[in-house]
Amino acid sequence: MKIQIDKSKKTPLYRQIAEQIQAQIISGEIPDGFQFPSERQLADTLGINRTTVLNAYKELKADGLLASHVGRGTVAVREEEHQERRTDYRKEPMWEYLFSDYLKNRDTFDVNKYLEMANQKDVISFAAGIASFENPPVQAFKGIENELLSNPKGMLVSPVAGFSSLRKVMASYMQKRSCFCQPSEIMITSGAQEGIDLTARAFLNPGDIVLIEEPSFFPAIQSFRAMGARLMAVPMESDGMDVKMLEQLLIRYHPKLIYTMPTYHNPCGVSMSTAKKVRLLELAARYSVPILEDDPYSELGFRGQAAAPLKTMDKNGNVIYLSSFSKTIYPGLRLGWICADKKLIHHFSSIRQLVDLHSCCISQQIVERFIVNGEMEKYVESIRREYRERRDMMADALKRYAPKGLSWNIPEGGYYLWCRLPDGLSADLLALQAAKNGVAILPGMPAYLSKQKGECYIRLNYTFPPRDRITCGIKILCDVIRKLILAHQQEEPLTDNEINPIL
Amino acid sequence: MKIQIDKSKKTPLYRQIAEQIQAQIISGEIPDGFQFPSERQLADTLGINRTTVLNAYKELKADGLLASHVGRGTVAVREEEHQERRTDYRKEPMWEYLFSDYLKNRDTFDVNKYLEMANQKDVISFAAGIASFENPPVQAFKGIENELLSNPKGMLVSPVAGFSSLRKVMASYMQKRSCFCQPSEIMITSGAQEGIDLTARAFLNPGDIVLIEEPSFFPAIQSFRAMGARLMAVPMESDGMDVKMLEQLLIRYHPKLIYTMPTYHNPCGVSMSTAKKVRLLELAARYSVPILEDDPYSELGFRGQAAAPLKTMDKNGNVIYLSSFSKTIYPGLRLGWICADKKLIHHFSSIRQLVDLHSCCISQQIVERFIVNGEMEKYVESIRREYRERRDMMADALKRYAPKGLSWNIPEGGYYLWCRLPDGLSADLLALQAAKNGVAILPGMPAYLSKQKGECYIRLNYTFPPRDRITCGIKILCDVIRKLILAHQQEEPLTDNEINPIL
Repeated sequence: MKIQIDKSKKTPLYRQIAEQIQAQIISGEIPDGFQFPSERQLADTLGINRTTVLNAYKELKADGLLASHVGRGTVAVREEEHQERRTDYRKEPMWEYLFSDYLKNRDTFDVNKYLEMANQKDVISFAAGIASFENPPVQAFKGIENELLSNPKGMLVSPVAGFSSLRKVMASYMQKRSCFCQPSEIMITSGAQEGIDLTARAFLNPGDIVLIEEPSFFPAIQSFRAMGARLMAVPMESDGMDVKMLEQLLIRYHPKLIYTMPTYHNPCGVSMSTAKKVRLLELAARYSVPILEDDPYSELGFRGQAAAPLKTMDKNGNVIYLSSFSKTIYPGLRLGWICADKKLIHHFSSIRQLVDLHSCCISQQIVERFIVNGEMEKYVESIRREYRERRDMMADALKRYAPKGLSWNIPEGGYYLWCRLPDGLSADLLALQAAKNGVAILPGMPAYLSKQKGECYIRLNYTFPPRDRITCGIKILCDVIRKLILAHQQEEPLTDNEINPIL
Repeated sequence: MKIQIDKSKKTPLYRQIAEQIQAQIISGEIPDGFQFPSERQLADTLGINRTTVLNAYKELKADGLLASHVGRGTVAVREEEHQERRTDYRKEPMWEYLFSDYLKNRDTFDVNKYLEMANQKDVISFAAGIASFENPPVQAFKGIENELLSNPKGMLVSPVAGFSSLRKVMASYMQKRSCFCQPSEIMITSGAQEGIDLTARAFLNPGDIVLIEEPSFFPAIQSFRAMGARLMAVPMESDGMDVKMLEQLLIRYHPKLIYTMPTYHNPCGVSMSTAKKVRLLELAARYSVPILEDDPYSELGFRGQAAAPLKTMDKNGNVIYLSSFSKTIYPGLRLGWICADKKLIHHFSSIRQLVDLHSCCISQQIVERFIVNGEMEKYVESIRREYRERRDMMADALKRYAPKGLSWNIPEGGYYLWCRLPDGLSADLLALQAAKNGVAILPGMPAYLSKQKGECYIRLNYTFPPRDRITCGIKILCDVIRKLILAHQQEEPLTDNEINPIL
């Protein structure tokens, strides 16, 4: 038995003694039947009042942990029956102490703050990354009920990598886009996000290095960070990532993975040049690094045809290709696919057995029918036109209303305009003020490793807002920016003690 | 420049030299323009033939890594142009060297071997854990097409934790079963497996301890192992896990999680007594350990009403409750739910944003309609009757055909009979022989931490095989067992050198 008392503590001395004895009895350090010193002996040893020990023993007896027997003195009691009477344990688990590093590693940047602004009633939302609801793919659902009712066995269960019929369909779908893969190299996933997650789980240990483009797709950054990976940024140029810097990082840091979105990049709209694609593949092969190609947008090219994925040029099998039906049909289907080396598909499947087993059977059936009967191609053709018009509407409105200092790109496909704010303006402040005026936007910060770099950018989506409110929304946004510029110019000049040393 | 040669290696000396120089030029240890020693100088230093160095230099020149200039001797070349000419890098990434510990930690037990046997044509499968396809829930799909076509916006996207309307429905669904939770305590998942995965990710670091029942649900074992957790088994008794042993393990090992399936356990069919439930909750509260209650089967009780989950008695919020529509409707929906503390639902959602975002919108709509219009209750009632009849058919057939030494339980609900084989019979051998005779079964091994313990058990499912083939399948299985017993009895007696010492 060990007891240490601390008179400086707020806890009364008798509680300090009782708690320590209690802990030692429960842990077994003090065995069942242990003979305690008399109250006077313990008081003398600890240099305290006898009453204090008396009170401590009294409490322990009330809890059934001590018992006094004539002739035997005071002994420890550890029988189950007595323990059950005690109710002094914490009522709720200590969740915060139980969580994993994975949960703690999550990026704390609160992107939901901005998405909630977008969900307010009557807000014109440029913040989302969601398809239009004004052009539903009605043909995708026609006849599905009959199929479900006539063949319920098809609803029972799917192979982990997806129905083999759909994997065949996706292999020819990829072949039409010059990517000559086999059905065994296809895995149907619950969206491209699952592909990112499976790749992160298959490759990343804590401390491993992942190279990403900067800016980059925010949830990918989060996925890698949550695995405990170290992220390093390769800056984006107007024709894709800086491949010279990429090579230096490959040589120096031996990364486990390169993550890229080579076509109609989210958020910055850039597409990688062929020369850079060649170089990227060459470097990946030389340094034996897998490339994760995230490609949800390449079918939405505004020049009338789909852009060729990096994967089409991948002779050595370094590229793990991801795409999704979320941007071309509906995110609510939760359906995407991976195209990669057969061995990797096997490994991804073995991981996926522990995640969600397989994708929803109904979604798989809907997409397969939609592609096979030729309706999907027509539908994508129609939204390509629609989204190009919306992009033009947004660009035109910006041209008309933009204040000096605001600049933006004109993407050749995809979902977003990427705007650089006039100097000194903060995207966070703008998001807040714009929301107050009924317009939601996404600031650039989450897309950067160091948040300050993203503070002068905003992302504007033109696919989700109602078509007839795009121009009006841009006008409101530009007015807000103009007011903020004015306010900024009237600010006091900086003093030189902005950041005070912490003493 | 550092060169070490090893004459005992098979690699020719000139290759050893060339490879080391090459590596050092690529890594930058040997800088661009570095002046190499003459062939004779290097040969002397290394104590080798001059021709060997000559050949090494020749190869490096061919690769564009060295250049000889009159008056400057031999120098290193590191310009990009030259490097590109080299094609001596490996063609395929070294996948095995790139994989994460998560992937490597996976349980290697090959359960697919047995499931493949079950998928052979005309095999009577008792191996699956799948609902009957003879009783489709047709009412679940009626009217779904109209709904999809009339409200396509509902297909766009769902909150991470599920549609709020479905979360409300599930809260009252739980309330009907005496579990008084709020919609904020419900999360819709892509099956119960996702609930296991989210829990594993939220709590487990490598080396953490998880207590499981033995036998236990195989994919849960796999999930925890893949996270790098240490698993410890609490033996099952006829009224649930051995809670005395549980307490000893809690005291000694401070586990992060207790995993249990208290009702109609898979694979062994046992349900936990109320006394043990009380004790389990008390211990979890005292030692501040979360309990993961996996409960896919409690609605399939054969006494006419659903068994009460452990969660109903959980006053302190220790229980993370999982269930699924896979066993009551269809696994192909990929839909289940978690019921847990609101704070945990929030954390699970933040993890899930990085996994699959949310569950399929169509599945969510189907299930919500099916419950709200009262059809689900009728359907579950009907399969309860159906499955009880099938259980009886299987038990009757066993009674009629079983050889001496074969014993089994009669579960009060769920999907499985759990059989103990006659002494000396191996479940693995039986699975193989049964498959040859057209019957698939699942051996007990994967359900145990030490596989040998499971070797004398098999799991028999009565929900999936066609109703009219259950009796016939059991007869075949019993015949195979009888033959194996005979063969076993005729085996040579064991000698005492079965396991030879490894010298």
